[in-house]
Amino acid sequence: MPNKNLKEDLKKVNQFKISEEDDILDLIESFSDTGFNAKRLASACEIYRDMVNEQECIKFFGLAGALVPAGMQGIVHDFVKEGFIDILVTTGANLTHDIAETLGFHHLQGDLDTERHDDVKLHNQEMNRIYDVFLPNKVYEGIEDFVSQLEIPNNNMPVSEFLHYLGSKLPDNPNSILKICAEKKIPIFCPAFTDSGLAMQIGFHHQNINLNHFKDMLSMVNLAWEAKKAGVCIVGGGVPKNFILQSLQFCPNAASYAIQITMDRPEPGGLSGATLREAISWGKVNENAKYSTVIADATIALPLIYLYLKKIC
Amino acid sequence: MPNKNLKEDLKKVNQFKISEEDDILDLIESFSDTGFNAKRLASACEIYRDMVNEQECIKFFGLAGALVPAGMQGIVHDFVKEGFIDILVTTGANLTHDIAETLGFHHLQGDLDTERHDDVKLHNQEMNRIYDVFLPNKVYEGIEDFVSQLEIPNNNMPVSEFLHYLGSKLPDNPNSILKICAEKKIPIFCPAFTDSGLAMQIGFHHQNINLNHFKDMLSMVNLAWEAKKAGVCIVGGGVPKNFILQSLQFCPNAASYAIQITMDRPEPGGLSGATLREAISWGKVNENAKYSTVIADATIALPLIYLYLKKIC
Amino acid sequence: MPNKNLKEDLKKVNQFKISEEDDILDLIESFSDTGFNAKRLASACEIYRDMVNEQECIKFFGLAGALVPAGMQGIVHDFVKEGFIDILVTTGANLTHDIAETLGFHHLQGDLDTERHDDVKLHNQEMNRIYDVFLPNKVYEGIEDFVSQLEIPNNNMPVSEFLHYLGSKLPDNPNSILKICAEKKIPIFCPAFTDSGLAMQIGFHHQNINLNHFKDMLSMVNLAWEAKKAGVCIVGGGVPKNFILQSLQFCPNAASYAIQITMDRPEPGGLSGATLREAISWGKVNENAKYSTVIADATIALPLIYLYLKKIC
Amino acid sequence: MPNKNLKEDLKKVNQFKISEEDDILDLIESFSDTGFNAKRLASACEIYRDMVNEQECIKFFGLAGALVPAGMQGIVHDFVKEGFIDILVTTGANLTHDIAETLGFHHLQGDLDTERHDDVKLHNQEMNRIYDVFLPNKVYEGIEDFVSQLEIPNNNMPVSEFLHYLGSKLPDNPNSILKICAEKKIPIFCPAFTDSGLAMQIGFHHQNINLNHFKDMLSMVNLAWEAKKAGVCIVGGGVPKNFILQSLQFCPNAASYAIQITMDRPEPGGLSGATLREAISWGKVNENAKYSTVIADATIALPLIYLYLKKIC
Repeated sequence: MPNKNLKEDLKKVNQFKISEEDDILDLIESFSDTGFNAKRLASACEIYRDMVNEQECIKFFGLAGALVPAGMQGIVHDFVKEGFIDILVTTGANLTHDIAETLGFHHLQGDLDTERHDDVKLHNQEMNRIYDVFLPNKVYEGIEDFVSQLEIPNNNMPVSEFLHYLGSKLPDNPNSILKICAEKKIPIFCPAFTDSGLAMQIGFHHQNINLNHFKDMLSMVNLAWEAKKAGVCIVGGGVPKNFILQSLQFCPNAASYAIQITMDRPEPGGLSGATLREAISWGKVNENAKYSTVIADATIALPLIYLYLKKIC
Repeated sequence: MPNKNLKEDLKKVNQFKISEEDDILDLIESFSDTGFNAKRLASACEIYRDMVNEQECIKFFGLAGALVPAGMQGIVHDFVKEGFIDILVTTGANLTHDIAETLGFHHLQGDLDTERHDDVKLHNQEMNRIYDVFLPNKVYEGIEDFVSQLEIPNNNMPVSEFLHYLGSKLPDNPNSILKICAEKKIPIFCPAFTDSGLAMQIGFHHQNINLNHFKDMLSMVNLAWEAKKAGVCIVGGGVPKNFILQSLQFCPNAASYAIQITMDRPEPGGLSGATLREAISWGKVNENAKYSTVIADATIALPLIYLYLKKIC
Repeated sequence: MPNKNLKEDLKKVNQFKISEEDDILDLIESFSDTGFNAKRLASACEIYRDMVNEQECIKFFGLAGALVPAGMQGIVHDFVKEGFIDILVTTGANLTHDIAETLGFHHLQGDLDTERHDDVKLHNQEMNRIYDVFLPNKVYEGIEDFVSQLEIPNNNMPVSEFLHYLGSKLPDNPNSILKICAEKKIPIFCPAFTDSGLAMQIGFHHQNINLNHFKDMLSMVNLAWEAKKAGVCIVGGGVPKNFILQSLQFCPNAASYAIQITMDRPEPGGLSGATLREAISWGKVNENAKYSTVIADATIALPLIYLYLKKIC
Repeated sequence: MPNKNLKEDLKKVNQFKISEEDDILDLIESFSDTGFNAKRLASACEIYRDMVNEQECIKFFGLAGALVPAGMQGIVHDFVKEGFIDILVTTGANLTHDIAETLGFHHLQGDLDTERHDDVKLHNQEMNRIYDVFLPNKVYEGIEDFVSQLEIPNNNMPVSEFLHYLGSKLPDNPNSILKICAEKKIPIFCPAFTDSGLAMQIGFHHQNINLNHFKDMLSMVNLAWEAKKAGVCIVGGGVPKNFILQSLQFCPNAASYAIQITMDRPEPGGLSGATLREAISWGKVNENAKYSTVIADATIALPLIYLYLKKIC
């Protein structure tokens, strides 16, 4: 709470100007003394900068939502490449779409005006819709070719190890998230792996597989346990958010930095929209942590944060 | 699209009246000729009624969101008990909370005004906050006592079989979701099981466990494959929504009925908020299906639907 | 904030059951010991009940959003008729639609699945769309006939007086909001009156009209000033919300009761979604007030509240 | 709808890269071949660019939401100054806050974490909260000094003329919206003027005032009538959105360009969240118009669009 004499303590809202020469750094700097989500975005940028600059901070990154279909594969890849992510937790869907693109297939642009899509016609043309993006059915055939030829090293290996193996088998690609994680040995967790087209094809072609989800859960706890300092960036919520936060209860100091970019809100009571402040009650976020939730579409906010980090770090 | 002569074809919006004697059936009936979400709720009720009345329809129910903490455990239990659910897919969180209540522990009511919660104080008092509900840390100790004494029948059993085993070991309780599913042999899937406090305790105490997630995935596909007719009720979205829908691609006729109750929206592109119409493009929902998405808090809509079904079926 | 010893002070969340015999009172009573929006709805019902039962409480009711097109005209009419509203503030759109229905015209039901609407075809057929409801252009011709024949008593009369005059000129109709307000002399304010189809037709046909908006503003302040006790029900937000709240700053005790039913949220910073707690800082809501914001579609929540009030008051 | 042979017609989603040298133009260009709201933002930028570049296009700009408190006064000012706005429609709140800042008073920054605000304490310290921004009560005293000394030229003048008069009386200020509109003779409409703190003070001090709202309504219709080509930018929705759109029904060609930046959604049925496509059914937006709705906080999107326009136009 503000101190007694608010008039002296509080900073003015900055009625900032933008000049033609301004770049993203100027913009974010201007935002930091405003209000609403502009300020939150600026705060998220600054917190991420601190996470990157602090050597011993382990950066957990939770990625939910169909970001690869929306063209954000290269951005996520570069977050990993640049060292902005130490541990990645994501959904099976993003991995499926990542493999599709990595194998040379593509998502297609539908109509900006989703009301114009005729899903019956799309179905007849074997076009699967993800809001305003299409994924042709034949892409799954391409994934199936890849998956069916895999030799599973160990039917009981942890999912995360299997994902590194998958990455190692994928062709070189400048955007592939699985590939760069495998190359850089960045742990990549997918707690709901079987909830994906990729896992379905693996299950069909390799009937004895029983990838170990529990070992991943314990590995994740160990990673949190060993982190002297932890930072979190949550994109979208979902299972990745909870999987990271449940582990951070075992981090000696909980998260010291926390960012959340989401369109979800607290009122329906689900974890995706829960405030980062709520996580303090659980001991998942430190009571002295810097944290910022930006209510924004990640397809806008994430590239802005990336560009900011690239310029300033 | 409406036919040429709209004036003759379209029904008037019903400017309905409510009398003191009206009950929920009257209200829903009135809603069915209105607009916006009232009409969608009425349509959802009618679709669920048709699902229940149609003998051969297999009813898939996806449950995400912290419904047990919000007091909806008994409602979900009774959906199962009354035969309104044939296959349940849910989150590890709801199972954790279900076990907590079944073992005799309780969630506690916080302040309606969440802005009044001090999460630092809550943390110091070992009170974990879920929006306006609290879960004391000591409840986890109770769950741990239960979990640590379990003898795991088979470290590699499917998660769903393990959940039936768990249900069989729980004490009798009129609200327990796990118990009633075990008793009625209603399949209960949890694709992101290791993303939960329950699974963490199981993992800590039973280090060799490697519950099979892939077999569940294939079982789910088989259940969809064998369904002559399929109906879906999605509460909240998340992994349960996708897990059901990905299986229904293998249902010979896709879903003939589909209901969704959620606060999520399509614009951010994630699956939780995707329209049911989008699922037609994927072949998950039949192009002739009856479907309705109700934008509503499930804590309000689900009990209303239950009461409607109880009175009319 | 909860007291030190939370374990003793806090009430358990009620894992309630619904029986076939239950009616809305049972449901709301069950909701009152749960969480999330079910609890908020129960609290809103109880607060409105208290407002109605407290003789000297002046009940301000703000109505934004296209409720008449969605079939809620009769409900709002009955809120007035039953004495649940002492002062109504609404939008020009709702008044336009109220007149349309009162004159015997109708809104029409479109497709539940709004993605199926072809707005170009609708335009060609002179069908105006309001989400899933249509308003044929010809209805405006009917309103114009009515408006063009009006003799304006005084070009400078306050908008609110003009609205009572309008009500007095309308035919008898069991649902008309304007009519019942005129008959019961319930003040009805419309601060953005010229932002409506109704006002446009009045302006076209009565070019010298200059209804006084400032007198209404001052009348509203006087009504608040004279209210020993004030209660507020906000549906949807918008201008009606602010117009009521800005007046309540002049109420000696600010609002003692406040309910808000909306789908808007605080994060974008607009007043529609602002919390009722924020209004305490302005002195619009009393620091000891009972208040509840229900995040719900008003087409569902408002009829439920009405039925509750009818049964209990 | 896409043509028959989708595979040939549809463009690939661009898995773009960001380099350290990129500026906002590069980013927006990259966004234009993606999906979700990034693509919508790019489309909005391009549409606004076309509106600015097309000489005869009249640019209507609707501004709702507390943008001045959030530090966006200078941006809106510069939209006017640069010729990006031909007709401004806004709320009384934004005008109130604009005058406050123009007179040298300031909004103050609260805590990013709104849960930490104690509204009772704020009230006791005479600090009015607008989400995470504060407006001290004493600012209203400053506005009152200004307002009380005004000599109203004509008690029955249109609100828009009065607003130009107000602007002419304000001191020079590089950010003032009212000032720049007065100087550049940009019409500025405020259909719900009496719904504001500014109008309340005017009403208290100038009891005979009866500013004409109907003349503004007719002027606005004339402006639309005379526009050979019309473009619309809607920020936030509310009365400004409807006031612009209801006028554009009288524009010979309806709007040829339309942008909307909002956090509101269509499902609750209110106009703020209605799609721009719905406006085609009303004849407010042309069936061949280019249009884009960006679901984003205006405090982030509006500065980005401004910077884009500055660099490219």
